[in-house]
Amino acid sequence: MTRLKMGMVGGGTGSFIGDVHRKAASIDGMIDMVCGAFSSNKEKSISSAKTLGIPDDRAYGSFEEMIIAEAKLPAHQQMDFVAIVTPNHMHYPPAKMALEYGFHVICDKPLSLTLDEAIELEKTVQSSGKIFALTHNYTGYPMVKQAKAMIHKGDLGAIRKINVHYLQGWLSTAVEKTGQKQAAWRTDPKRSGIGGALGDIGTHAENLIEYITGIQIEELAADLTAFGEGRILDDDGNILLRFENGAKGIMSFSQIATGEENNIGVKVYGTKGSIEWYQENPNQLIVKWLDQPKQIYTPAGNGVYPESSEYVRIPAGHPEGYLEGFATIYRSFAKELLMVKSGKTTSVNPDFPTITDGVRGMKFIYAAVESSNNNANWTKM
Amino acid sequence: MTRLKMGMVGGGTGSFIGDVHRKAASIDGMIDMVCGAFSSNKEKSISSAKTLGIPDDRAYGSFEEMIIAEAKLPAHQQMDFVAIVTPNHMHYPPAKMALEYGFHVICDKPLSLTLDEAIELEKTVQSSGKIFALTHNYTGYPMVKQAKAMIHKGDLGAIRKINVHYLQGWLSTAVEKTGQKQAAWRTDPKRSGIGGALGDIGTHAENLIEYITGIQIEELAADLTAFGEGRILDDDGNILLRFENGAKGIMSFSQIATGEENNIGVKVYGTKGSIEWYQENPNQLIVKWLDQPKQIYTPAGNGVYPESSEYVRIPAGHPEGYLEGFATIYRSFAKELLMVKSGKTTSVNPDFPTITDGVRGMKFIYAAVESSNNNANWTKM
Amino acid sequence: MTRLKMGMVGGGTGSFIGDVHRKAASIDGMIDMVCGAFSSNKEKSISSAKTLGIPDDRAYGSFEEMIIAEAKLPAHQQMDFVAIVTPNHMHYPPAKMALEYGFHVICDKPLSLTLDEAIELEKTVQSSGKIFALTHNYTGYPMVKQAKAMIHKGDLGAIRKINVHYLQGWLSTAVEKTGQKQAAWRTDPKRSGIGGALGDIGTHAENLIEYITGIQIEELAADLTAFGEGRILDDDGNILLRFENGAKGIMSFSQIATGEENNIGVKVYGTKGSIEWYQENPNQLIVKWLDQPKQIYTPAGNGVYPESSEYVRIPAGHPEGYLEGFATIYRSFAKELLMVKSGKTTSVNPDFPTITDGVRGMKFIYAAVESSNNNANWTKM
Amino acid sequence: MTRLKMGMVGGGTGSFIGDVHRKAASIDGMIDMVCGAFSSNKEKSISSAKTLGIPDDRAYGSFEEMIIAEAKLPAHQQMDFVAIVTPNHMHYPPAKMALEYGFHVICDKPLSLTLDEAIELEKTVQSSGKIFALTHNYTGYPMVKQAKAMIHKGDLGAIRKINVHYLQGWLSTAVEKTGQKQAAWRTDPKRSGIGGALGDIGTHAENLIEYITGIQIEELAADLTAFGEGRILDDDGNILLRFENGAKGIMSFSQIATGEENNIGVKVYGTKGSIEWYQENPNQLIVKWLDQPKQIYTPAGNGVYPESSEYVRIPAGHPEGYLEGFATIYRSFAKELLMVKSGKTTSVNPDFPTITDGVRGMKFIYAAVESSNNNANWTKM
Repeated sequence: MTRLKMGMVGGGTGSFIGDVHRKAASIDGMIDMVCGAFSSNKEKSISSAKTLGIPDDRAYGSFEEMIIAEAKLPAHQQMDFVAIVTPNHMHYPPAKMALEYGFHVICDKPLSLTLDEAIELEKTVQSSGKIFALTHNYTGYPMVKQAKAMIHKGDLGAIRKINVHYLQGWLSTAVEKTGQKQAAWRTDPKRSGIGGALGDIGTHAENLIEYITGIQIEELAADLTAFGEGRILDDDGNILLRFENGAKGIMSFSQIATGEENNIGVKVYGTKGSIEWYQENPNQLIVKWLDQPKQIYTPAGNGVYPESSEYVRIPAGHPEGYLEGFATIYRSFAKELLMVKSGKTTSVNPDFPTITDGVRGMKFIYAAVESSNNNANWTKM
Repeated sequence: MTRLKMGMVGGGTGSFIGDVHRKAASIDGMIDMVCGAFSSNKEKSISSAKTLGIPDDRAYGSFEEMIIAEAKLPAHQQMDFVAIVTPNHMHYPPAKMALEYGFHVICDKPLSLTLDEAIELEKTVQSSGKIFALTHNYTGYPMVKQAKAMIHKGDLGAIRKINVHYLQGWLSTAVEKTGQKQAAWRTDPKRSGIGGALGDIGTHAENLIEYITGIQIEELAADLTAFGEGRILDDDGNILLRFENGAKGIMSFSQIATGEENNIGVKVYGTKGSIEWYQENPNQLIVKWLDQPKQIYTPAGNGVYPESSEYVRIPAGHPEGYLEGFATIYRSFAKELLMVKSGKTTSVNPDFPTITDGVRGMKFIYAAVESSNNNANWTKM
Repeated sequence: MTRLKMGMVGGGTGSFIGDVHRKAASIDGMIDMVCGAFSSNKEKSISSAKTLGIPDDRAYGSFEEMIIAEAKLPAHQQMDFVAIVTPNHMHYPPAKMALEYGFHVICDKPLSLTLDEAIELEKTVQSSGKIFALTHNYTGYPMVKQAKAMIHKGDLGAIRKINVHYLQGWLSTAVEKTGQKQAAWRTDPKRSGIGGALGDIGTHAENLIEYITGIQIEELAADLTAFGEGRILDDDGNILLRFENGAKGIMSFSQIATGEENNIGVKVYGTKGSIEWYQENPNQLIVKWLDQPKQIYTPAGNGVYPESSEYVRIPAGHPEGYLEGFATIYRSFAKELLMVKSGKTTSVNPDFPTITDGVRGMKFIYAAVESSNNNANWTKM
Repeated sequence: MTRLKMGMVGGGTGSFIGDVHRKAASIDGMIDMVCGAFSSNKEKSISSAKTLGIPDDRAYGSFEEMIIAEAKLPAHQQMDFVAIVTPNHMHYPPAKMALEYGFHVICDKPLSLTLDEAIELEKTVQSSGKIFALTHNYTGYPMVKQAKAMIHKGDLGAIRKINVHYLQGWLSTAVEKTGQKQAAWRTDPKRSGIGGALGDIGTHAENLIEYITGIQIEELAADLTAFGEGRILDDDGNILLRFENGAKGIMSFSQIATGEENNIGVKVYGTKGSIEWYQENPNQLIVKWLDQPKQIYTPAGNGVYPESSEYVRIPAGHPEGYLEGFATIYRSFAKELLMVKSGKTTSVNPDFPTITDGVRGMKFIYAAVESSNNNANWTKM
């Protein structure tokens, strides 16, 4: 089997999400990292490359340098796609340039710094004909796939209520003032954009419910707060949701929810049944029925749909986690690329988040901020 | 020990909540039911009385008849207090009359059909000098007491986020059209008032968070919905909350949350830690800390405060349930009455919900309905 | 409805289990306590009686005094049955005498101090024609009834594996030397018999699995240990089990399992499915199937058999606890007595533990001690 | 960083455990698979190699061929170590030969077909001076490391009780007769050895408790059963345990525990506290204390020791699973190899299971079978 070649933008030594992307890309044995612009400082980039087993001449000091240099390499050597794992403000520039130079792109979320960038990038993706994936990784969990399949098949009946939360506590104190890099850029509008926790985790919550239900948020009423002293961007938010099909719901997210680690969870209620899923215990899907006992589905367990079980790597009872969910995005992306390389048409609806999801995420950020600025007025998304 | 004598209004054969009140009143051996107006039909009232071991001459055909007759009995025979377990529209009339005739009152929630009644009743309680308790029973659970004590002592630091939900699914279908009495009156504005699920369970959620935190809701933005075909009253609601101390929060309640039984739960986040409690698994309180591992407190377990453990009846690991929590309201109420009877002053802050809580519950209903009618505008409570 | 009259042996002020029996007897409104020999010291007995609302002249200084005096009262005044809530060595004497004087008996477990007493008592019950119940209260939980019904109906197929544990930590330190009365008598062979934790909680475990499965233990290999310094009786035990139908299993019990509160749980595996139940979270029954997703049954919830739901007092989602389970034994016992009083024949298989269960419990204690004394040799039960 | 080169024995297309080993080896980016004897049929081996990205000339038709050929390659090309992922009977031959040819070895468990082989192999490891790791992967979970560290530091006090279970249901029916390859060899003594479930999962349970506690089993009394019709090897077992320090315990394992997926769990009780861990929910460690509330530790969460947190790859709340635990064995093994290659002395106590653990596992199998054949007589291990 041909293995795909990845070039990375960002993800130098000490990076959290860069390392996640690399591990995720490696799990299924379809992808090799061959080059990277791991830092905007070339020496640091080379230094990171050494620890990652990348030769010096494939370690670049900027994404521009990397894209130009790789484009000149023979086809069998050059990278196939770019993985972008930088802070938000550095998503759009490398993504756009990579696409324009003919490389496929997989990019961390949210899509971009501004909505304008997002819309512009969508056009570029369309005109380029290249594959673009956004790593809303929570969609990669098998039990999320199962929930999606059950709703899609109508098992829960008509959907009427959708509640989602994403609660973290790591910004409960002013860690951004202690030199913590993750906190520093996430609380800085220049690098994060107009959403704080909203952009960082609210967009995951938004993507998760639209992915699972296939139903779009129509309008929202948001109450965003910056509890941390001196913070410009929100670190907490509560949002009323109205969906295109008449369903109602609620979203609560926070990075000052003291004691929470990474608690994203969702409940969806239909006329016949409901589902519940919690990321910190991801290998169970709770299903409650109108007239049957509650059920617990597990990956590769009894009664799970093929739409879910095809994403399971190991037998029932052997838990998969965050990295495997993340890896599923990479694997699905890689399969698309292999189809393209082999001349086959790609899927019309690939099972990973695309540029369309990215644009929706940015619209969500903008609608929520606008609503909150207007004292939680209903705002179309 | 003197036992107190209870007269009941409502609670005839087949009643759900009347039976709960009776069991709750009996558990601690402080109260005997001696009479009742179990039905507005005297024959039915007598028939219920027979099965309950009440003599025919203490079974009345109306609350007026009961109050007048009992008032004429010698002091050592007459009832000490009235327990009101009727639908909402029949709370105010017997409560007011009982107080005016010198009887103490314990009443089911919400307090009354209208806010005007609530305010009027508050005056009557004050002028009568009698004890009035409202059975917001969820405040009776030991772990709720523990949460309250921890927050009151400042263990969690300053409170910043308060989320509460109360999810049931029993009105997912149109059971009110099938002759189900519980559903019939709860969906009927004449008997329920202007709130449907809002009044029935939303008020429990409101009371629970104000009880636990000691912090009042200042304003709210409510999105109420009647999903059930032909329903006039809400069967679902989502509410943004702002609290007097600057905390923010969210409430979601529903009676069309298919598959949910009686899922009321609360999360409170402070600067130092947070608590989580779920009624369906009431014997654990989850406490998450800024810098210590998560803890699970249990009734009578290690580290529990006296403010909680005094409400536990049995050793650690022996679960108590709904009836015991309910019984705690009755026991605290009974202790107050015994103090009154023995000439002692009553507690300034008795540890059971009072008329004040009842009025707040009605204000909550009115504010939420007003807000929802104005498309979720912020409304003061 | 006629209410039954209870006389109590033991259960004076400060008693744990006496208070539990009283609350359990009161919950369903079928039983009034009318007299008691609460202490072998008459003054103390009277003092206890006062706090319990029992007139002085019905407070006795010994069970003999009580039984003789009550037997002389007019039938409509005298107690209907005796509740025995004393330490083990004081079960047999009052039980035997009460039966011989024509009173029904409900008795705490284990049945008696010695196996000889148990066998003798069984004869007395049979010759007396009176009702005898043993408070193996864990059989009173609705989810235990559901498990029993499912196995009885064959839902799980042929039973092959039965594991049970009962883990407590309250004897992890030498509390019996600190004046703790519960610990003092339980670690004293004169009052406890030849089993320590074995008799106190091992018998509950034994009764629970035989009750749920309807299958008897045939032989066992026991390894009992007294970890506590200076303890004569076991405070910990592990037992291999072989059942009459060929099933195998294991029992582990302990009172030195540090940090455990009252953790009794059971797993039963059949050819088609399996059940799991844990007393500390008693309102769920976990059912795992050969070829269907795992289910969670709840009291009064979807899909529960009538054999279980008839024991539920409140709607689904409203948790019941230890006292309600205990009360179920009293209620079933009371129903039998009312049938007897009304001249009807009693049930052939009443749904509460009987003298037969009591004798089996004593045989279990004796077999386990014998096995352990023989280095865990297989011993018939 | 130098990457290590792996050659695999077994693990051809359709293999479960081979694929697990490959994914586990790849996650941390330290190892590349460079060759394999994926099947004893050379064509099949080449076919597997193709899908795995291995060139044809490094796909061998037998382990002998691979070892001989690789040994002749230049040092910078040849494999560094052999990973053995075959059924039990094919562990010893390739392991011994690889060691003798100077290759390090990582091998699936149990160590070998017979105890004699195990003892022989231990000698070979010692004389070869090569690194040998056994993939008792459950020791790789961060919360298992935390449990081990807590016990080692004395946090729980003196250990008195150790219970372990490993319950699966996949052999509840006669799947070995349906062509299922995993079941076929595991139920065949020629390929599995004298233990069935005992060898397959009982050894995991044995290793887990000895690893966590650092205390060895001294003797055991085992009751093994073959419930499946026609099965020669046990598919279920219950074992009494006595430990070298006087602790007692129990083990229950089964592959006919209908409905169980991969339920391995352990409870360890000391004089000061206790721990509980369950593999199906691996990211929490429950710690119960003598005199403090229960705690839940999580990977990278508050209060976790460095001995645990160094094995965590992602921030708190991002669950890791089976593959990451498995990968930890590979990573620790790889670190040892890198030290050897760089001329440094290896760890005296490397933190992965070694040949010593392998021999103990075989002794456990032999002791348990001997005990069971003698009607559960106590047998030294």
